[in-house]
Amino acid sequence: MDDPDYRKLVKETLFEVKDYTPGKSVEYVKRKYGLDRVIKLASNENSFGASRKAIEEFKKFEDLHIYPPSQPETLIHKISEYLGVEEDRIVLGAGIDGVLENIFKIFIERGDRVLLSPPTFPYYHILVRIFSGKEVECGRDENFRMTYSGEKFKLAIVCSPNNPTGNVERKEVVEDIIDSGGIVFIDEAYAEFSDENLLEFAEEENVIVARTLSKAFGLANMRVGYAVLPEWIKKLYLKVSTPFPLSTPAINSACAVLEDLDYLRWVVEEIKRERERVFRELSKHVKVYPSQANFLFARLDVSSRYLCELLMSKGVIIRDCSGFKGCRDGDIRVTIGRSDENSYFIEKFLEVMDEMGGGVDL
Amino acid sequence: MDDPDYRKLVKETLFEVKDYTPGKSVEYVKRKYGLDRVIKLASNENSFGASRKAIEEFKKFEDLHIYPPSQPETLIHKISEYLGVEEDRIVLGAGIDGVLENIFKIFIERGDRVLLSPPTFPYYHILVRIFSGKEVECGRDENFRMTYSGEKFKLAIVCSPNNPTGNVERKEVVEDIIDSGGIVFIDEAYAEFSDENLLEFAEEENVIVARTLSKAFGLANMRVGYAVLPEWIKKLYLKVSTPFPLSTPAINSACAVLEDLDYLRWVVEEIKRERERVFRELSKHVKVYPSQANFLFARLDVSSRYLCELLMSKGVIIRDCSGFKGCRDGDIRVTIGRSDENSYFIEKFLEVMDEMGGGVDL
Repeated sequence: MDDPDYRKLVKETLFEVKDYTPGKSVEYVKRKYGLDRVIKLASNENSFGASRKAIEEFKKFEDLHIYPPSQPETLIHKISEYLGVEEDRIVLGAGIDGVLENIFKIFIERGDRVLLSPPTFPYYHILVRIFSGKEVECGRDENFRMTYSGEKFKLAIVCSPNNPTGNVERKEVVEDIIDSGGIVFIDEAYAEFSDENLLEFAEEENVIVARTLSKAFGLANMRVGYAVLPEWIKKLYLKVSTPFPLSTPAINSACAVLEDLDYLRWVVEEIKRERERVFRELSKHVKVYPSQANFLFARLDVSSRYLCELLMSKGVIIRDCSGFKGCRDGDIRVTIGRSDENSYFIEKFLEVMDEMGGGVDL
Repeated sequence: MDDPDYRKLVKETLFEVKDYTPGKSVEYVKRKYGLDRVIKLASNENSFGASRKAIEEFKKFEDLHIYPPSQPETLIHKISEYLGVEEDRIVLGAGIDGVLENIFKIFIERGDRVLLSPPTFPYYHILVRIFSGKEVECGRDENFRMTYSGEKFKLAIVCSPNNPTGNVERKEVVEDIIDSGGIVFIDEAYAEFSDENLLEFAEEENVIVARTLSKAFGLANMRVGYAVLPEWIKKLYLKVSTPFPLSTPAINSACAVLEDLDYLRWVVEEIKRERERVFRELSKHVKVYPSQANFLFARLDVSSRYLCELLMSKGVIIRDCSGFKGCRDGDIRVTIGRSDENSYFIEKFLEVMDEMGGGVDL
């Protein structure tokens, strides 16, 4: 039984956060529908997997009982070489989520304005509420590109390529945001899949550019995020960071993927080629948007909620975006996987669209 | 160059947090002093290591590219069996640090009062500042047992056995704290080494009891923390928790250690026996306090800062507590390791005390 006295102690803004509902796993869907083959294209994971060398490094570790180093120099050095950025401006975190949380810890408390541009990554909205901040909305044009019109903020979050829409943001707009006097966090989780990036802005004293090894590098399970930021923010970051954001095997496998850039390039080319193929196929039937990430966003004329359920019953898990702020029922996001997975998705998607009377010719 | 305009955006309370200085690693000390043997008894790690079964489970994992489950049922089930507590009242986090951070996210914002009893685990003080809370102090008696005298708070943190002093708290005092109307977080990281625990209080609607697999179970690198709490807090916890607090290999090795309780019991008995031996040996020379954890606390008549440096140059790393709030220069904490490590520590400790003129008869 809830005790009303104690509930009064909870931060008010948290009651605006929806109850947590976990995503469906492949195992769950197999069990529920009695299926042998289930593919998951819902979390923008890299179906090609991490470099074999990373898996080998991961497996070498045995000292589970020893704490990992806090901000391991070897990994920071490798990232510094990969990006061509000084080590003093690099920090690590448990995924970009972990990095962003540390940025909130430094800057955001009750009532502070945080600029977000829906539709975007849902966790941003939750973080604003967790830190009792105030969400300020920045618009987007018909191609989902941000349109900044001078809204005031303490922290702005720019996601480029944007999740779930896949577009990159225009440099002149990002520049306007940076010039407005607040702190700007640029989430480039999908940068490796994109022809353009915003890393150059990390030179500014108020800009943080965050990246991850979860996507193109295939280390989602290890949660290795990092950021390039000014030295004065790095000092504060180290004060607020959890003591051990990365396990030693995560550090070791991260170093290994950064040494196998040939594999990275091959994976990225495969995914980009497949992205164009799936885009062409879907475009024949539905409104799908060009993407610079490892996923595609589509806006359907039918209920995405229902469509995703039906697709799941046929063994394909994709993301229904109807619950994303700034989206509508009809919006979906599908990860680009391996060629066979993508073909399987297209086949089942068209089947389901047909069943739903979506006017798809098969 | 720091831009003063941007620094104004930082939470004021953060400037009270000292700059981060990483602890010295075994490798660093070996290099610096040209030593072959260096032992670290500074982080309360379990020198016996994790169960072999856990290491095997850890190594089986290959899918680095797939996200882990958020709050894995299998692990929650195993913890539920281990403690004899319903699954609906168990949550997971990245170490107790991660669990406590989530509790701060739920309850603490600018100006909220957090009750702490120094000397205690330093990260608590940092968390209060990160969340712009206000620290309220609870006293301790000459044996470091908490003495609560009605201080008002929104969140109280009770660490039992207390880090760094090793004593458990009295149930009647903890009961007074619980009855005072705030939320009470009980950190039992070292419960397995203790003859008493406070788990029974987790039945209360305002109490969270947190435990970890980092210490007695030997999984420090995997950062598996958990808590028993009322269901209404669990719902909020799942809203604020980072999406993937534990990696799959962490989950798998955690399940394995919870299946190998014979090994746990053996390790705990070894450490307790060694704890009594080291206590007896040190007691002959210095003021050392009885402990229910896997470490001992001692208050010396000489500078602990200097002593720890000297000890390090001889290949033994222990914790100088002089920087802990509520401690003084002269306070040290030493982890109980394997028998050979403890003997090595005692030998070098007495050598150093003698060199420092601490009046130790060798």
